[in-house]
Amino acid sequence: MAERTEEQHAAKMKKKQAAHDRIMAARTAEKGLLIVHTGKGKGKTTAALGMVLRAIGHGKKVGVVQFVKGAMDTGEKAVFGRFPEHVEFRPMGDGFTWDTQNRAQDIASARAAWEEVRRMIADPTYDMVLADELNIVLRYEYLPLDEVLEVLRAKPADTHVIVTGRNAPAALIDMADLVTEMTLVKHPSREQGIKAQAGIEF
Amino acid sequence: MAERTEEQHAAKMKKKQAAHDRIMAARTAEKGLLIVHTGKGKGKTTAALGMVLRAIGHGKKVGVVQFVKGAMDTGEKAVFGRFPEHVEFRPMGDGFTWDTQNRAQDIASARAAWEEVRRMIADPTYDMVLADELNIVLRYEYLPLDEVLEVLRAKPADTHVIVTGRNAPAALIDMADLVTEMTLVKHPSREQGIKAQAGIEF
Repeated sequence: MAERTEEQHAAKMKKKQAAHDRIMAARTAEKGLLIVHTGKGKGKTTAALGMVLRAIGHGKKVGVVQFVKGAMDTGEKAVFGRFPEHVEFRPMGDGFTWDTQNRAQDIASARAAWEEVRRMIADPTYDMVLADELNIVLRYEYLPLDEVLEVLRAKPADTHVIVTGRNAPAALIDMADLVTEMTLVKHPSREQGIKAQAGIEF
Repeated sequence: MAERTEEQHAAKMKKKQAAHDRIMAARTAEKGLLIVHTGKGKGKTTAALGMVLRAIGHGKKVGVVQFVKGAMDTGEKAVFGRFPEHVEFRPMGDGFTWDTQNRAQDIASARAAWEEVRRMIADPTYDMVLADELNIVLRYEYLPLDEVLEVLRAKPADTHVIVTGRNAPAALIDMADLVTEMTLVKHPSREQGIKAQAGIEF
């Protein structure tokens, strides 16, 4: 790029801006999105939390249900607790399935968490609902996929719903508006023996 | 899974827990990570914002420098403004390079933003520093890559540094501890003409 003159740069950018403006002018619709974050990489839950943060900043009302995390002290819990009018935060998990070692209990927990998600989605005062790690309980077949898809299909038109977790079902991906796969390129806990750290993993 | 008895399930999960505990026991180190979020998908900045949110929740001090976003009213700005003792937030961009149409100005903006990042990284009172969209200005060669890598290599051992933006340089990926590529599976703005929406894109 160094050999381009300032005039050439300005002309090229002007052209780029015009193209960008044309594209943006064609994007006029607003709609509540069904968003899926999946894949083996990190960032599925954190990107969803970042969306919750932005929504709070715009004064919106958000419901967050965590299917795996329970009573532990997370950073998200501490911050969301400062915005009680904007976030209803429900960490409803019992930990991982290998912690409980009890399938009936896991199914009951998944059901209770799902009923919360369902209630929030049905209530049009919520602008955004995050079902964190829902894909995990679907993978274990702790909830009927058809029932979940039916609720998502019937969500209010303006509500954003975010579903996270690895192994998102194909039918959910088909239904979603925005799907991102987080791909693991490098992870320090494996390669360097680094443990879960505050501010990063929780 | 339905045909497995409860006892078999419990036994399998017990085994899984033991394996998990062994792995976790080997992960004892804590260290400030160099984290990179790249790729064409969404979630690079939002996942970084989610980490900032978690760090704030743990009472840590975070510096955030945005290389592209400027004065616009973003959700992150509104929330971070509520935590002045924990987040120093500096949206220092002029917009995209096709908005300014002036390379000298873009280079000056990139330099000013980078000096802020550099100052924050050098100051050990910051637990986390986010250089949002730094990869973009590196791609345009608005900052010398060698200089950036040198500063990152010399960061305090406990400080987490997060760099976002598509097209992360290979040398940065080599140096990083944790690298995630956000892969676009489906995007509504292209396919459905949906515009950027509050709470999602800003």
